[in-house]
Amino acid sequence: MPRPIIIDTDPGIDDALAIMLAAASPEVKILGIVAVAGNVGLEHTAANAASLADLLRLTCPVGRGASGPLWRRDTSSATEVHGTNGLGGYQLPTSTRPLEAGIPLCARLIETSPEPVTVVAIGPLTNIALLINQHPETARKVERFVIMGGGTLDVLGNTTPAAEFNIYYDPDAAACLFNFGVPITMVGLNATHQALVGSAHLPRLLASGGPVAKMVAHLIASYHENHQPSDESAQHDSLALAAVVDPSILTTSHLHVDVENIGRLTAGMTVVDHLGRTGKPNCDVAIDVNVTQFRELLDSRLSQLDISLTGQGG
Amino acid sequence: MPRPIIIDTDPGIDDALAIMLAAASPEVKILGIVAVAGNVGLEHTAANAASLADLLRLTCPVGRGASGPLWRRDTSSATEVHGTNGLGGYQLPTSTRPLEAGIPLCARLIETSPEPVTVVAIGPLTNIALLINQHPETARKVERFVIMGGGTLDVLGNTTPAAEFNIYYDPDAAACLFNFGVPITMVGLNATHQALVGSAHLPRLLASGGPVAKMVAHLIASYHENHQPSDESAQHDSLALAAVVDPSILTTSHLHVDVENIGRLTAGMTVVDHLGRTGKPNCDVAIDVNVTQFRELLDSRLSQLDISLTGQGG
Amino acid sequence: MPRPIIIDTDPGIDDALAIMLAAASPEVKILGIVAVAGNVGLEHTAANAASLADLLRLTCPVGRGASGPLWRRDTSSATEVHGTNGLGGYQLPTSTRPLEAGIPLCARLIETSPEPVTVVAIGPLTNIALLINQHPETARKVERFVIMGGGTLDVLGNTTPAAEFNIYYDPDAAACLFNFGVPITMVGLNATHQALVGSAHLPRLLASGGPVAKMVAHLIASYHENHQPSDESAQHDSLALAAVVDPSILTTSHLHVDVENIGRLTAGMTVVDHLGRTGKPNCDVAIDVNVTQFRELLDSRLSQLDISLTGQGG
Amino acid sequence: MPRPIIIDTDPGIDDALAIMLAAASPEVKILGIVAVAGNVGLEHTAANAASLADLLRLTCPVGRGASGPLWRRDTSSATEVHGTNGLGGYQLPTSTRPLEAGIPLCARLIETSPEPVTVVAIGPLTNIALLINQHPETARKVERFVIMGGGTLDVLGNTTPAAEFNIYYDPDAAACLFNFGVPITMVGLNATHQALVGSAHLPRLLASGGPVAKMVAHLIASYHENHQPSDESAQHDSLALAAVVDPSILTTSHLHVDVENIGRLTAGMTVVDHLGRTGKPNCDVAIDVNVTQFRELLDSRLSQLDISLTGQGG
Repeated sequence: MPRPIIIDTDPGIDDALAIMLAAASPEVKILGIVAVAGNVGLEHTAANAASLADLLRLTCPVGRGASGPLWRRDTSSATEVHGTNGLGGYQLPTSTRPLEAGIPLCARLIETSPEPVTVVAIGPLTNIALLINQHPETARKVERFVIMGGGTLDVLGNTTPAAEFNIYYDPDAAACLFNFGVPITMVGLNATHQALVGSAHLPRLLASGGPVAKMVAHLIASYHENHQPSDESAQHDSLALAAVVDPSILTTSHLHVDVENIGRLTAGMTVVDHLGRTGKPNCDVAIDVNVTQFRELLDSRLSQLDISLTGQGG
Repeated sequence: MPRPIIIDTDPGIDDALAIMLAAASPEVKILGIVAVAGNVGLEHTAANAASLADLLRLTCPVGRGASGPLWRRDTSSATEVHGTNGLGGYQLPTSTRPLEAGIPLCARLIETSPEPVTVVAIGPLTNIALLINQHPETARKVERFVIMGGGTLDVLGNTTPAAEFNIYYDPDAAACLFNFGVPITMVGLNATHQALVGSAHLPRLLASGGPVAKMVAHLIASYHENHQPSDESAQHDSLALAAVVDPSILTTSHLHVDVENIGRLTAGMTVVDHLGRTGKPNCDVAIDVNVTQFRELLDSRLSQLDISLTGQGG
Repeated sequence: MPRPIIIDTDPGIDDALAIMLAAASPEVKILGIVAVAGNVGLEHTAANAASLADLLRLTCPVGRGASGPLWRRDTSSATEVHGTNGLGGYQLPTSTRPLEAGIPLCARLIETSPEPVTVVAIGPLTNIALLINQHPETARKVERFVIMGGGTLDVLGNTTPAAEFNIYYDPDAAACLFNFGVPITMVGLNATHQALVGSAHLPRLLASGGPVAKMVAHLIASYHENHQPSDESAQHDSLALAAVVDPSILTTSHLHVDVENIGRLTAGMTVVDHLGRTGKPNCDVAIDVNVTQFRELLDSRLSQLDISLTGQGG
Repeated sequence: MPRPIIIDTDPGIDDALAIMLAAASPEVKILGIVAVAGNVGLEHTAANAASLADLLRLTCPVGRGASGPLWRRDTSSATEVHGTNGLGGYQLPTSTRPLEAGIPLCARLIETSPEPVTVVAIGPLTNIALLINQHPETARKVERFVIMGGGTLDVLGNTTPAAEFNIYYDPDAAACLFNFGVPITMVGLNATHQALVGSAHLPRLLASGGPVAKMVAHLIASYHENHQPSDESAQHDSLALAAVVDPSILTTSHLHVDVENIGRLTAGMTVVDHLGRTGKPNCDVAIDVNVTQFRELLDSRLSQLDISLTGQGG
């Protein structure tokens, strides 16, 4: 039986790949997709989420969640990485799919699922904090929150020296989740920086020539995060998704994690207590990645999806 | 034509009087009541809001909003002032009225009202921040937010030396509202401490002997905020409501207000810039109260309401 | 027997008047003057302190203390009030008096005084924090710290909406003093704003025509703090000094005071706990000023000093 | 020509070894030792510094500096690591050596040295901040500050998950140094955790049987930092000293470093900007340690010192 999941997302190039991977994986069933502001503004992330659902022929509902952080106003987007439209300039047809209010949608999907739901949150955690705040009992029914964000101290922040983008964007929302008391898996930069993927790792997909292949080729080429000589880049969000599809891809440690949301220099930093000094473990922290297995999963699943879409489409 | 209002509230003794005043005043039309955690927990404030709506025979919907501050966990309630049930131990019949999800309700009421809506927020501002976050365009359609909270520097905080309860409970939510850029009237402690009301000021109401009179007599007797020799106490929330019913009760100054939400000693303080140094005016700050007029309004309106309820009820 | 005092100061126009008042008052004996950075940089405040000591024929040592706040770098001076040289452009002859290291001087004077010393601190409190830090036992021997700074909530800050200049300049130093556990009198803006002095209040001095009269006339004319139609301005620092010369000029309340040094909007605010919620009283807070008595003291003492200097000088 | 150094220290077990190494090394000349509160209170660190100077027959002056952090009061010591007397219970004869005021001593030594002085600061940086504050021009004459403290993100804090003890004890003082604009070498936990030393690495010293050997054997046995099966522990402070004696022991990177001194969870964290986003490089950050060379230096130098002391003493 597939695991029911909700994808909370700010697509975003690597978000797009994560959604594709979910659509391609029989191990999970996408109950809904909820957009949040982050990599780009909500008007783009919501539109992208809907267009991706169209492209992938997903019948699940798509929702619009938070338009910005809980209270901070001076946030910046990541358009230098994702382009102004969030997809590196790739143009998907505009969706006519109706968008629901995101937080009520999320709550309804959790409440009505016969099996406990896993929430895969691969953008800022604002929607999650809103869910916790308005529907605390519902949020406690979630099987697990698998988030892409933060990291352990041994990998540098990608937004400030100490902070990763998703957490930095709304550190208060992240602090809310980590202090709520539910199962969390944190797939942070220390893990995702191991998950480098380039076109060389996706031979079957890129050979398939369908709509997924076309889009992924564009996204990988336009993903300007690392400025590496090759086109490899860290596939942050699809690693979090992959950890739900195939948990053996990650090894984790059970540790206490909290989020600095006050600091002069460190706001948005996930503070991982490796030595168990400050609190009870509340998070399974991704430590090691089986990169070969991850690349193989991406390539095999996305190429199958592409063939299937082409077949159905043709 | 009555002014359409939404009451955002955490009843709460003085909240109850404010709701009664609204129900009794033809100048306003209550579109809905949304509960928020504050004086007591959401389970009590929502139940009290519903029971009050029953008592007052209000046909408007009642909603359940935020169960606590945006992200802080270590908040305390004000049960020493309002009793454990929020109404000083007064028992209203339990309502069987269905409660809607508060934020979507608030958004729908604003969107569907033919006239711009005034939101009277007399509890912590968490629901307001959630509305701004999830429905920013809707929040911008609000005619004005009239809030009870904070104050100018010349009146002491009632929760810490610098902070009033509603703002202290969720300073981040308050900062969110004050930085959003919509018309705000702040009815703070500097104003409400002028609005002392005791049984001596409500002769007609207390003589009427109906359900409102009975409840108000109990509430006034049990309101342990001031420990004054008489039973006078500051009617914080009904002053904010009165300012909508009859704006001439207040004089205001147009000033810049922001909320300290980081400080070691001053979190929850409304920082009013009387000298115009730090920003553009964003708030009409209540300065002076016509107390006689306010007491007269309360007594005349609540006694009429009581008679009407008795008449209708009998 | 005169009360031995050390004046810790950042002259500064109103500092100059305070030093003159001390020099003119037999009730106090100036053991030393220690300069601190504040209104203008230490190079000016130290030079001004030395030149004033020359002008007033003081034989006490003059010291150079802190060149800036304990750790903050982004402080601003108050040159718009005091002019770039700190004395509104008034040129005193450059002193050739040797300047001692300020903190050791301060400690030595406290230790060697047969009577307990009163420290009158009328600039930022950096030197005081440095004394406490390096010579805690010595600092505990101080009879009392009488400071000009901060204020109660009912008077606005003069640097930010919540903060007075001396405290704002180095809030950490102020927090250090208020948490050290020694007798403190705080003469804040709420008191000094009552102590308006203009040339009309100094008839005898301005008639005397000596060097003090000449300098005071210039200082009062150049003191651009209030932009009032008359030349009246709040004589902050000489009020603190006057409170040592004649304690009956002030009425005080014994309250708990601490200093916000973290806040986003309120750093540098003195938080006075009028209702006794947050701690044991640690400060005599100046509340009311006998303004007539204060003006009379200034005029009578400074005019006598001027005559005496002219007589001796001639 | 030996390099003139001042040792700023809170002995402290590993401080004691660092002072011994300095005394044993002809490459450096100890101009003075200044004690600061840290591992234990100033009364102990100053007494220990004096007793160590006696034991090592140092003729340089010893000073007493700061008795605690710049302004924080709620600091804790590290007695669980260093014992209540700071030397793991080892009793040195009480010194009768007079102690000078530490900051003036430090300033005088820097000013009067014919060669620019290197300050080796192996305790909290309070004395350094006080020097910068009271003697900024003097502090700018320092050749380099070599500090033991902080670390890069890849090694865990030893006091909180993000902070090392010396920086955590007085983060404001550390922020003061890092923002002052002088050459700094930071020998942090990421480096010192490589510098494990146990009795097995000091064969010549432990064989020598003199007073240094006796004391070091005791110190190593009582150093309860790591709870490792062997008696190896990180010799934090002597690594910083060794970096002055023989710079080839370390490899460093030139990076921007600042200190978080506000955070809810991260106060005392050194924020190292490996990717050059936040400012100009201001610090040579120790990255790699030649451990063999370091152990050899300790063993050879301390054993020679021991023989020399025994010879002179006998």
